Amino acid sequence: MTASSNPAFDMVVVGGTGDLARRKLLPSLYLLHKNGQLSPAGRILAVARHELSTEQYREQIANSSQQEIPADQLDPETWDAFVRRLHYRAAPNATAAGYRSLTKDLDQDGARVRVFYLATMPSLYGDLAHAIGGAGLITDSSRIVLEKPIGHDLASAQQINARVGEAFREEQIFRIDHYLGKETVQNLMVLRFANALFEPLWRSEHIDHVQITVAERLGVEDRGEYYDHTGALRDMVQNHLLQLLCLVAMEPPARLEQDSIRDEKIKVLQSLRPIVDGDVAKKTVRAQYREGVVAGERVAGYHQEPGIGVDSSTETFVALKAEIDNWRWAGVPFYLRTGKRMAYRVSEIMIQFRRVPHQIFEDRLGALQDNRLVIRLQPDEFIKLAMMVKNPGPNIRLKPVDLNLNLATTFAGRTPLAYERLLLDVIQGSATLFMHRAEVEAAWRWVEPILEGWGHREWRPRSYAAGSWGPEESMALMLRDNRSWYELMA
Amino acid sequence: MTASSNPAFDMVVVGGTGDLARRKLLPSLYLLHKNGQLSPAGRILAVARHELSTEQYREQIANSSQQEIPADQLDPETWDAFVRRLHYRAAPNATAAGYRSLTKDLDQDGARVRVFYLATMPSLYGDLAHAIGGAGLITDSSRIVLEKPIGHDLASAQQINARVGEAFREEQIFRIDHYLGKETVQNLMVLRFANALFEPLWRSEHIDHVQITVAERLGVEDRGEYYDHTGALRDMVQNHLLQLLCLVAMEPPARLEQDSIRDEKIKVLQSLRPIVDGDVAKKTVRAQYREGVVAGERVAGYHQEPGIGVDSSTETFVALKAEIDNWRWAGVPFYLRTGKRMAYRVSEIMIQFRRVPHQIFEDRLGALQDNRLVIRLQPDEFIKLAMMVKNPGPNIRLKPVDLNLNLATTFAGRTPLAYERLLLDVIQGSATLFMHRAEVEAAWRWVEPILEGWGHREWRPRSYAAGSWGPEESMALMLRDNRSWYELMA
Repeated sequence: MTASSNPAFDMVVVGGTGDLARRKLLPSLYLLHKNGQLSPAGRILAVARHELSTEQYREQIANSSQQEIPADQLDPETWDAFVRRLHYRAAPNATAAGYRSLTKDLDQDGARVRVFYLATMPSLYGDLAHAIGGAGLITDSSRIVLEKPIGHDLASAQQINARVGEAFREEQIFRIDHYLGKETVQNLMVLRFANALFEPLWRSEHIDHVQITVAERLGVEDRGEYYDHTGALRDMVQNHLLQLLCLVAMEPPARLEQDSIRDEKIKVLQSLRPIVDGDVAKKTVRAQYREGVVAGERVAGYHQEPGIGVDSSTETFVALKAEIDNWRWAGVPFYLRTGKRMAYRVSEIMIQFRRVPHQIFEDRLGALQDNRLVIRLQPDEFIKLAMMVKNPGPNIRLKPVDLNLNLATTFAGRTPLAYERLLLDVIQGSATLFMHRAEVEAAWRWVEPILEGWGHREWRPRSYAAGSWGPEESMALMLRDNRSWYELMA
Repeated sequence: MTASSNPAFDMVVVGGTGDLARRKLLPSLYLLHKNGQLSPAGRILAVARHELSTEQYREQIANSSQQEIPADQLDPETWDAFVRRLHYRAAPNATAAGYRSLTKDLDQDGARVRVFYLATMPSLYGDLAHAIGGAGLITDSSRIVLEKPIGHDLASAQQINARVGEAFREEQIFRIDHYLGKETVQNLMVLRFANALFEPLWRSEHIDHVQITVAERLGVEDRGEYYDHTGALRDMVQNHLLQLLCLVAMEPPARLEQDSIRDEKIKVLQSLRPIVDGDVAKKTVRAQYREGVVAGERVAGYHQEPGIGVDSSTETFVALKAEIDNWRWAGVPFYLRTGKRMAYRVSEIMIQFRRVPHQIFEDRLGALQDNRLVIRLQPDEFIKLAMMVKNPGPNIRLKPVDLNLNLATTFAGRTPLAYERLLLDVIQGSATLFMHRAEVEAAWRWVEPILEGWGHREWRPRSYAAGSWGPEESMALMLRDNRSWYELMA
């Protein structure tokens, strides 16, 4: 790695005592440190409201951060060297006065990369950006990282973007979607554009439909109150699922550069056919989990969870049929679904190719299964290509098999965490995997009429048993198109 | 398996004491027997010139046949049951009188399948067919199986076909090419026509070129005299390699039936651009092995082998560039090569896809390798798809990987021998994998001008070291087209 790609940096983690910082950011920074991917001159400054000394902070985070590090990557000596990069500063509130005290903690070389990572509630983003700006902390080499969700609807997203934009230039703003840091997601671009095999097939002529599933096994946990104001459509579809859809559907970018890729993704979002009025009932399903059994354990229904309103109609499950009105995808539905308390945790993209146009093998030789390309993001990451081959033996008998590419077994060494990749990108200033303001707003623009449709309609959300794959209406959504959800494996 | 696909039969193996019978046919029949694929009423009658009793014959073949059977498939009890199907009858010469004695050994039910397998020198095919016919042994349910080579050139092939055709109808004649019995060769048809993935790519727009290699490690062994009158072009290219080329190149057949498939193969052979006159030197390479080292052992050159003429110019190696003049393959060369005393024994078809039309990944991210589909026929059988993926880790680095389909590990149980499949097909009357008279003659028609070109020219065959991959001229043949031979793995 060249020096220029491994620059010295100060990273300010606002919300340094929170879950995200302790369980995702610090473990990822530790792993980057251990692998020699951070400049020795890189420093991390955790900021939060509490009065703590750096020593106290280091002690406080040690346990919860170390738990997230793979055991074979953790050793006390490296950890000690890592925490020497780590300092703490209290900032009592999100004001310029509250942030001025950080000045002395930051390197005054204007060329040094300075990252402000807002690991806080999104409602603070605007104030924090102003506080950081007002305190005179923004240099030309400064960047700000925002976690999802950016807003609650189009108007609030626009407001956050506008307020942060008053302090930072758009190219300084890194809106993170950690799904884009997954190896297999990045592999999707390589698969499509580094192989001559797929691109000719990657269009309505050859693809029947696409399914994107992000299933969680957990319920709302202790985030009930937050979740009840959010729901699956805002929490998952507006960002993660639509980003995955964009990567599958986008045209080849002119260059492998942030602007080219963002432009292509925005074009996809703009081509999504709006789901409005009567279509909301036809093309979307929302539902809430009721009690059920997950992994052998009886669990409560959504309405029994702490913090959930008695008559809450917030959805914990969404299934919908998205259509992209452009030449490449005309007539190829993208079915998306996401839910909490599903049978197990799995995220997959499944691309189903069309049936062979003419069948020369008689049915008695074995049922032809359509070709499928499956890209799994979690819990493990793999790519598989399902195809038909001949079963060895006399006479032709057809059999479906999978050509597998397992990232863990094919490549020696561990697959890096999504945040490792993304944090390094922020330090190096590569915004390819981050979202432009226009992307976030285009996604809200498409999601909002669905939210409105649900609000106006008399009907309540459907219900599904915890531990199932969602309500019957989700199967019916597919059945109406003579299709079915791809069976996911644990 | 239904009764109708498992008919009672009498199989007459003419040349029953020869190598082919002992080392290929009987072991394959044993395996079919063991797997319950032969009707209990099936009988085998070995015929040769020697006077032997059935008991003596059974003893004589036991050792050499059993050696060819996988150890885990061989047990004495099954062997004993198998040889009870096996009888012997001497036929002193290839005349009607010589064959009349077989009448009493054969079931007189005209509906019973009767197979005459000519495991003899091809020069006897005409006489034998007439002898069998003259002895009144041919029923409506009779079939005759001919081994390659059918003839020595177009005229002799036509003569054999005509003489056999005087006794048997064309649909009764099964011309065997055991390469077509390989699992992976049959898989080629399934891959192409049972998957929607490949067929759209299977044309000049997406395929750069095709390579077919059949490399043998053995020299001419004790067949020097025969081989010196034959050479690699007649022995391998005219049949095996052109058949493989046909299966790769043919249009989708109307039905999975012998006539449909043969018609498509004949169309390919007829579309082969003739190699005549000056093109012979440009598009073909012939060579002979000289001494060298194979598998760590010093071995003799072709001219030192027993039975080889002092000034023999018979080729033990051929490389050539075939072109198919039709819409699908215009501009896509098929490079064929075969030789004795090569580095190791391997038969492979390699389909190289075109380069991606536009390269968005910079060279420093890793060299893009073109996609390749490799179908290996021997020594092991597998299919692999070489493609580019992202190397896990921060930053995009590209890496070639193989998606593998290993028949042995994917499917429980052993891969059947090529002859098992083909013998069963003969008994069941399925001619899909056998060659029509028109195919054999079309192949000779294309091969003959090359033989003539070599004969007329002053130049002698090139030479290559035993244990190498052939002469430099073979590499040069590819280099002139800016290509190179695919590196074969042991």
